Formats: sequence, C-alpha cells, structure tokens
Amino acid sequence: MKITRDLYQGSLALLTDFYQLTMAYAYWKSGKGEQQAVFNLSFRKHPFQSGFTLAAGLDYLIDFCRNFRFDEDDLAYLSEMKTKDGNPTFETGFIEYLRKLEFACDIEAVEEGTVVFPHIPLVKVTGPLIQCQLLETPLLNIINFQTLIATKAARICFAAQGKSVLEFGLRRAQGIDGALAASRASYIGGCSATSNVMAGKLFGIPVSGTHAHSWIMSFDSELEAFKAYAEAFPDHCVFLVDTYDTIKGVANAIEVGRILREKGRELVGIRIDSGDLAYYSNIAREMLDQAGFPNAKIVASNDLDEHIITSLIVQDASIDVWGVGTKLVTAFDQPALGAVYKLAAIQTSEGKWEPRVKVSQQAIKINVPGRQQVFRFSKNGRAVADMICLEGSDVGRDQFTILDPIDPTRMKKINTKGLEVESLLKPIFQKGQKVYERPNIHEIKQKAQRNLEYFDKTHKRLVNPHIYPVGLEESLYQLRNSLVFKMKNNDGEENHI
Amino acid sequence: MKITRDLYQGSLALLTDFYQLTMAYAYWKSGKGEQQAVFNLSFRKHPFQSGFTLAAGLDYLIDFCRNFRFDEDDLAYLSEMKTKDGNPTFETGFIEYLRKLEFACDIEAVEEGTVVFPHIPLVKVTGPLIQCQLLETPLLNIINFQTLIATKAARICFAAQGKSVLEFGLRRAQGIDGALAASRASYIGGCSATSNVMAGKLFGIPVSGTHAHSWIMSFDSELEAFKAYAEAFPDHCVFLVDTYDTIKGVANAIEVGRILREKGRELVGIRIDSGDLAYYSNIAREMLDQAGFPNAKIVASNDLDEHIITSLIVQDASIDVWGVGTKLVTAFDQPALGAVYKLAAIQTSEGKWEPRVKVSQQAIKINVPGRQQVFRFSKNGRAVADMICLEGSDVGRDQFTILDPIDPTRMKKINTKGLEVESLLKPIFQKGQKVYERPNIHEIKQKAQRNLEYFDKTHKRLVNPHIYPVGLEESLYQLRNSLVFKMKNNDGEENHI
Repeated sequence: MKITRDLYQGSLALLTDFYQLTMAYAYWKSGKGEQQAVFNLSFRKHPFQSGFTLAAGLDYLIDFCRNFRFDEDDLAYLSEMKTKDGNPTFETGFIEYLRKLEFACDIEAVEEGTVVFPHIPLVKVTGPLIQCQLLETPLLNIINFQTLIATKAARICFAAQGKSVLEFGLRRAQGIDGALAASRASYIGGCSATSNVMAGKLFGIPVSGTHAHSWIMSFDSELEAFKAYAEAFPDHCVFLVDTYDTIKGVANAIEVGRILREKGRELVGIRIDSGDLAYYSNIAREMLDQAGFPNAKIVASNDLDEHIITSLIVQDASIDVWGVGTKLVTAFDQPALGAVYKLAAIQTSEGKWEPRVKVSQQAIKINVPGRQQVFRFSKNGRAVADMICLEGSDVGRDQFTILDPIDPTRMKKINTKGLEVESLLKPIFQKGQKVYERPNIHEIKQKAQRNLEYFDKTHKRLVNPHIYPVGLEESLYQLRNSLVFKMKNNDGEENHI
Repeated sequence: MKITRDLYQGSLALLTDFYQLTMAYAYWKSGKGEQQAVFNLSFRKHPFQSGFTLAAGLDYLIDFCRNFRFDEDDLAYLSEMKTKDGNPTFETGFIEYLRKLEFACDIEAVEEGTVVFPHIPLVKVTGPLIQCQLLETPLLNIINFQTLIATKAARICFAAQGKSVLEFGLRRAQGIDGALAASRASYIGGCSATSNVMAGKLFGIPVSGTHAHSWIMSFDSELEAFKAYAEAFPDHCVFLVDTYDTIKGVANAIEVGRILREKGRELVGIRIDSGDLAYYSNIAREMLDQAGFPNAKIVASNDLDEHIITSLIVQDASIDVWGVGTKLVTAFDQPALGAVYKLAAIQTSEGKWEPRVKVSQQAIKINVPGRQQVFRFSKNGRAVADMICLEGSDVGRDQFTILDPIDPTRMKKINTKGLEVESLLKPIFQKGQKVYERPNIHEIKQKAQRNLEYFDKTHKRLVNPHIYPVGLEESLYQLRNSLVFKMKNNDGEENHI
C-alpha cells in the first residue's frame, strides 16, 4: 500500500506552509541548513474531552517521507516567485539545493493503533534543520487528522458496546482525502466497514451499503422497489423503510421477506434513517419478530454519535447495526486535533545536543525540551503509567517519579518491580532509509483493539474519564523548568506573569 | 486548471458510496439504468446560523465529471467482490456496462461565488438513472465542503471589515485535500492569501508566510535570529515576537528594524501568535509608533474566527492583518454542510416527466419535486427575492407569489415591474459535453465579492441575520403539497403525524 503515491500524482513537497520554505532559505543563507535538530510532534489535550487518544496516520507519513522530493514542476514554481520589487524570492543556489535534497532524517514514532496521551511525542524527527522544518506541516496535517478520527471512531464503537458500526461519511467529509483518510482511521478505530468504495480499494477495508431513498422513488411504489432490489440481491436485502412512512415500509419489507423465504433466501434486515429511532426501531423489531423474522437486523442512521448511541441504548432501542457518517468523519464536536511540532534540541558545531524550549504566557504552550524517549509501564496486561524521559536515561531503576508538566501537584512514584516496560517510540527511518516493517490495516486495527484493552474502562468513559498518569521523569521536569526560567530571565528581570 | 486530474492519479469513479454501485447494478438488472432522471443538490439550512451561503466547488465538480470513467483497476476490484456465499457480487455483463460507460448527463449549476439559500438547487443533474446515482456522493462531497468553507471565509472577512485575512490552516485541516480545497474556497470567500504552497501552485492563489518559533529557537537568542532572517529577506521581515516574551520580542524587532532602515530597507511588521491579542497588539503598536515605525503592520493569529475578530475590533485592538487557520479550514463550529441530492423527477417510458417527492416526519427532509429553475429578482443592484419554479414557467408575469416550503405563513408577493431577473442555474454540461467557460480563481473571487454586495448587510450580520426571502412559486408549492399528501395517503389513511 503506497497511499500518497497511488493517490496523488507527482511530488507532495510543496504541501507545506510557505514559511517553511522561507525559513529553509534563510537557514541555507545563514549556513545552518544542515545543522542537526530534533523536533517532536505532540498534542496538548485529548479531543472530545476524551480520556484517551488513538494514534493513526503513520502509514501516510511513511509514504510522504519516502516520496519526499522537489520535482521540476515544484522548482519552476519556486523559481518564478518574486518579491514585491520584482526580484526572485529565492536564489538559484537554493533552488539547486532543493533539487538535490534527499530525505535523510531519522524518524521514531508511536505505532498506529497505540493509545496515547498529551505531551507524548507521537513522532520524533532528527535530521538537518531544513528537512525537519519542511516536514512540519504535512506531518501535522496527516497525524492530526487520522489520530482525531481514529479516536472518535473508538469512542463511537465503545458506545456501541460491541455492535457493528459502519462508516458512511463520504458525502459530508472535508474534501476527497478528508473522506479517504477518515475511512481508514475509522476502520482502525473499530468500525466494521465503510461505504467509500475507493477507501475499500485503496486500503483493503470492507465496504458495505444497499440502497437509498432514490431507489424507492424511482419506482411507482415502495413495494415494487423492494421486489426489484430483491431480484438483484436476493441474499443482501437491507431495505431502507422510511422513504414515505416507516411503519408501512417495515410491512413492505416483511412482505418481500416472505417472498424471499419462499425462494429459500432470507431477509438480511431493514434500515431506518429518520424520525425517532428508539420509537420506530422497537415497533419494527416487534413487527419483524411477529412476522417470523427474528434474525432480520435493524440498522439505524441519522446524525449519530457516541452520545446519541448511548442514549438510544439506554432507551432500549432495538438497533443491531449503527451507521455513522457526518459526526464521525468530520469529528463534528471537535473537528481538529491541535497537535504541534516543536524544536526540542539542536546540535552545536561541537556536536553537543542542546535542549530548547518555547516559552509562553499560556503554560500549556510550553513544549518539553530535549531528546526524549517514552516508556509505558504495565502490570498484568494493564497499563499503569507513561513516563517521558531523556534519551539515555537509566530505565533499569527501581523507582521513578513522574510529574505532570502543566500541574506539578499531579505526580506519581512508580515502583518498577514486577512491572513490564515498553518503549513507545519505534524506529521508522534511519538516515532516510525505512527500517520499519509496516503492518497491514487489519493488524493495525487489531493492535488498536488490544491496546484499548490495556486501559481500564474508567479511562475510556465518554464523559469525565479518569485521568491516566503520564508525566515527565523528575530530571526532565527540572530541566524544563530551569530552561523556562532562564529564557524568561535572560535580561535579569524576574517578572514571570 | 485540472484539479482532480493534476492532483489525483487515475480514475475517481470509485469515490462513491457502495450503495450507489449496488443500486446501479439493480437498475441495470431491472432495465431501468438508462431511464432519464433529474436530481437536485440543495441544502436545508445555512451553516453557522448564517443569513447567507456562498456556493463553491463547481470547478472540482467539472473536473470530476470530465474524468468520470471506470478504469481497469476499478473494474478488477469490482469483479473480485464476492457475496457471503462466495459468488461474484456483480455479473460480468454489468462490469462490461461500466467499462463502456461514458458520462452523458446534462448539468446545470449555480456558479461559484454566488450567494445561495436553502432549498435552491445548487446543482441539477439530468441523465441516465445509473449515472445520476453514481455521481451523488462525489458531488455532495465536493460541493458540501467548498461551499461550507467559502461561507466561513466570507463571514470571517466580513468581521475583519476590509482588513486582510490570511489562511494558515494546512496543519490542522482534515486530510490533504481537506487542506487544498479549503485554501481554494477560503480565497473565493475573501481571504488574501494562503500559507499552503501547493494550493498556491495548483490554484494560482497568492502564498504568504515568514517564520515560526523554531526559527528563533534554533539560534542562541531572538535578536540573533531576527538579524539572520533580515539578512535573507531584508524586504520581507514580519517578525514573530512571542517565542519567549512578547514585549521583549517587539523591542528586538524594533532594533532590527533600525538596522534595516540604515540599509535603506523597511520593517514590514510583526506577528503575535499567543497571549491576549488586544493587550499585546496595543502595546506593540505604541512601541512601534514611538520608535518611528508607524507603517509596520501587526499580524495576529491564534484560534481566530469571526466572533473573536469582532470582539478584538470592538476592543480597539491594533491589528492590521488577521491570520486564521483551524477555525476556518475545518469550519470548526459546524464542520459539515448537510446538502442532499434528491431525485426530483423521472421520465416515464412515454417520455413524460413525473415529479417525485420523499416524505418524512421531519418536514425539513421533504424535498422539492419537479424539474426546477431558479430566478433571482433584484432592483437597483440589490437582491429582492429568489423564486424556485418549474421549468417552463412563464417568468414574464407581472406578479408572483412565493411561499417558504417549510413555513407557508412566510410568503411574499413579487411585483416584477422594474425588477431585473437572473436565472441562477447555468448550463455546465450538455449530454456530457462541457458547455461552460470556466472563470479563473480571481474572477470567481471577484464574483463572490460583487454577489455579496447585492445583499443588504442585515443578511450578512453574523448573529441573528435578517432572513432573505426565498420561496416556491405558488403552483410548485401546491404540487409539492399534493404529492406529499398523495404519498402519505396512498392506502387511504389520513394520519399525517
């Protein structure tokens, strides 16, 4: 699977913010272009007031990096750019530099389907400043969106309590790839199938769907329409019953179900797409049962999300399969994950790594400095805590103290005896060469399911979840504070607010 | 500009819901595949509680239709699909039918940059049932999203009261095309430029951007970083001043501004990306003015939308340029426009057009039947009312009555004397051949600006806008009601609730 290569023509190197190119040029001009740097991609808050986030998008990221190059078309576009006074924006030497540029970064990343938390680096890029910088925007675009949607899907599937969830969102998704990437991430997050045939073809996801209202309306009557559909798909009839009147629609579905049965076939189910889903699903269930179709499934759709599904389950609605679209593929209640990509360390000309921090009046906007690694401690297959520490830290110690980077009153001592430990950041590229064996989409989905099971259900609760402990190892916490004070005090003043 | 062709490889015919293909197959099986039908794409409610919506996306739609074909790869995928019992889902005859399928529809559409309202057909497709059906999902995907974002951009630019708005959203957009299509639609809606270089290249939109926090952090001090940037771009310095401390940042920008001036160059401005934008922009303005830089612009960004911009203007913030990202490109407060695509009429074997209606307990979900046209009446360059009527209606009459399809107590008599009238639906394709001359992106943007000026500012107010009159011509209104009653009563019952 080569998603970006199969889907997009040519180079995607220009899929970046213009300021990455102006910075790249200025780095080049000032001789800093090849200086080694470390950037971390992380988010600051879970989306949807969730207690967990599910990482996704790495496969796209790998494609993007493998295909990273400026083609002649891109270079021509950049060469023709002019400043206000009509001079070329970029010198030809820089265009030449871009022409020869070959992806040469190290990338470590959290695997797709891993449950992740604020402050953890999901992707860590080490390489020449210019390359790290040019990758910022596309990496954020890819990881932000797919992680957002995988998380939304996991929440919706959690609400559905093991019943099948189908993703129907193509028509309301944000653009072509907004749909395709959402179908992929929804499957990773737990959905059973997508309506998007191209996503099925590109990613190997099961596709599903039967018919729309227009099918019914193109015939003189609903009954005639159901019969004609049953002729074409005798083993695949899920009749949409609410084109004119839901109850009459169920009666017509039953009538055609009987015809099918006479031919040795079986009605698969019905779908309700409007009106009160609790009320109509229960009437439909009763009608189907009484008519001798207890195995006919009821599919429901109509602006569903995790909260409406929960409410319908509480109301004992008779719904076997959930069709979700808009609210899932656009992450309607929070359509963006605000992950950022921050410089964490830079190598001096003597080869020494210096940690870097961005200061802000908003504490949550202060990044975690240094070259980091992340460890997840668990006990008997249940995650206990995540620790972010500096590379090279001794992880064999008996005890660690971790502190929440925003609220230091939240701290935890971890007694490592009897705990298992996993390093979350896996090597993906080394010096530009892929070293990671990509799992297929079904393996990623399974990993997500297993990963979600590591976490107590209180962390997965939809509203007011229990907060899982994630923190900076004590010495990293101290480093961060001392750097912040240093940057705030670099003229000797002591005003921190 | 061939967006989908330049951007995407191969065919996009599978970019549709699976049920379009199952229906297509069933139409083919039942001999209805070539039956002529009319489908309308329309929305039911303005997004964002807006008083207007700005149409966009037609150029993508044209590309999609021009490239519409199933390639061998698509056909192989469909041929390999199996039902549960292992038989092919689709007969080979149908695969052959798809192989030979050539786009043959008539399409009329509202031009991009036109102000539109609920119930108006934005796109009207007339053609063989199978083709109309296969086009449903991609057309909705394209038009829903770009119309949503163009509208959001127009609202944000309205709030900015003529000051420049830059679109910065790539990193938080929903997928690759979610970003590209959003950059395009934002420009149509009124933004001056985008940060997305690929959007610049593909669509010919101006790009802008200077540097990020990482630029500053990669140097030993902010002052050093500003100086190095000024070396590379002496005429293009907009310094981001909030990496460590906004006020010190402004002082450093001024210091480098003085150096630039000594060299005969001029500081373009500064950017503030965090903290209280009202407070810091005013301090920065004062510092810049006192230092002799009254022309240096102040750019502000940080989760801006139309409401925050309005609030900052009310607070007399000193902001000259607005950078908007996440809230614009994801349409954060309503990330989907719910446009639908409904069968409106079907041709009988005798060649007669029969209007069709979908009934629902939710009145807003009942479509407008029949083959429609739309007229906009205006007086002295100011729009007065829009009328949806049946094709072939006499528009030369002196008086019309229009009724709101949802609330018949909202009606209006239109005295046509002295009014200008424009037909909003323009021919785009005839029998599959493009007959429309595509305007370029700048012409579309200009059209949008002019179109917005046709409407009184009370309709463009951000909160509680005045509702512009749009209705069904009386005889169409009657037709719709009689069809609804007929469909609800087709067994003689009289229960309508």
